[in-house]
Amino acid sequence: MRIGVFDSGFGGLTVLRALLDRIPGAEFFYLGDTARLPYGAKSRKTVARYAVSSAKFLTSEGADHLVIACNTASALALDAIRDAVPVPVLGVVETGANAARASSRTRDVLVVATAATVESRAYAAACAERELRALEKACPLLVPLVEEGWIEHPVTAEVLRIYLSELMEEAAAANIDADTLVLGCTHYPLLRAQFERATPRSLRVIDSAQVTAEQVAEMLGTGNGAQNSGSRVRFYATDSVAKFSALGGRFLGRAIPAVELVDLGG
Amino acid sequence: MRIGVFDSGFGGLTVLRALLDRIPGAEFFYLGDTARLPYGAKSRKTVARYAVSSAKFLTSEGADHLVIACNTASALALDAIRDAVPVPVLGVVETGANAARASSRTRDVLVVATAATVESRAYAAACAERELRALEKACPLLVPLVEEGWIEHPVTAEVLRIYLSELMEEAAAANIDADTLVLGCTHYPLLRAQFERATPRSLRVIDSAQVTAEQVAEMLGTGNGAQNSGSRVRFYATDSVAKFSALGGRFLGRAIPAVELVDLGG
Repeated sequence: MRIGVFDSGFGGLTVLRALLDRIPGAEFFYLGDTARLPYGAKSRKTVARYAVSSAKFLTSEGADHLVIACNTASALALDAIRDAVPVPVLGVVETGANAARASSRTRDVLVVATAATVESRAYAAACAERELRALEKACPLLVPLVEEGWIEHPVTAEVLRIYLSELMEEAAAANIDADTLVLGCTHYPLLRAQFERATPRSLRVIDSAQVTAEQVAEMLGTGNGAQNSGSRVRFYATDSVAKFSALGGRFLGRAIPAVELVDLGG
Repeated sequence: MRIGVFDSGFGGLTVLRALLDRIPGAEFFYLGDTARLPYGAKSRKTVARYAVSSAKFLTSEGADHLVIACNTASALALDAIRDAVPVPVLGVVETGANAARASSRTRDVLVVATAATVESRAYAAACAERELRALEKACPLLVPLVEEGWIEHPVTAEVLRIYLSELMEEAAAANIDADTLVLGCTHYPLLRAQFERATPRSLRVIDSAQVTAEQVAEMLGTGNGAQNSGSRVRFYATDSVAKFSALGGRFLGRAIPAVELVDLGG
């Protein structure tokens, strides 16, 4: 089994990390389109162009399944990617919405994500298909805070408090009785503890990286929690491979040995 | 006179705004490479590739002078741009260093900028050529805070306080007796009042947008402060023109009427 994992940058490594834990023996290809990141504030057309060229690269390297581990690309470009490559494609928006469906009793959920993901209304649509109401909130400062390394930091706690209190006010005003909060950006799992601290206990926090790995493992019929000694990973980046190795380790939770530089044009 | 102004995004509009005030009657071409922004965390090679294609576009449209209003591109790609186009090219790092030289009595200056600008050591080198010592500090959260619109905001004040106190500690440890602080990123002029509030009175704050406009006007031998009713501006962007109009107005200080979409590949 050859699984391609794609993200605009490093956040998708949180998904890869969860996949490595769950799908032992598979071969993985990870591409971070670091020369063109971030996708979060760009238009649908531009994101689709970038994501399709990235997906084609991964299948040309031999991937027979693709996981779009970038919420923005999943939200804005999933159909374009499915049209462009001949292999099964799973995106984190769908898996996040599936997990929200399984979690929510009230059928009302909250979603935090990048500006582009929220503007696309992709979570709202995916939730509506599953008979859930979703209230979304863009949190554009969280990615830079994670990338600055300010994880356990009072400024990050304050920014989270501001975003979440605005979201709660909007929920109250719209009469949304949410019991589930979806972390709709693959940078946010690094702030999971901070989210859990900043939200009421009645709100269950769903980590899109983890639930994506669970659903990919289920789809591929592989076991859960087995040893992953047999997994092999090849890493590709479109910008500096040195920077990819250095920063990526924080997301993968272990050192990244070798990264290949890829030129996708642009 | 046909002046091309280039930035990765919106920040260069602060330079254009200052140029419009100082060079009446000129024709301006502004390109924001918004599909590939931000440059601030990317490698020299990638930034040079993007900046050269952008500079070539502006000269192909008829610009006979180029102002590189992006600190990262000026720091990493000025020589590559000069090699690639047949017109005079001025970059904000040089003009910032010139202004620092004119301002500083102690010959010690501080520079705040993006991570890529700081890593390039371009300000340090430009200052050294002018017999100044420069201590640089990367402030990666300031651009996202400006883009979130959190200008007069307690979180921004706190982030600035943290960055500046780290910088002051480093200056004390290195025995740097600075009297000048260069805002080495074209987003930072929007935070000029906050910088002035957060720094001691003994430190003069230099706004790179303003000093660049002054030096371009001087170089072109045009008057100062005359009416600009005769100026014409054409705006180009590589990503959503609607977003460019909406966000750009904040930096230009007035509405942006029409923007042309440009495809530079990538």
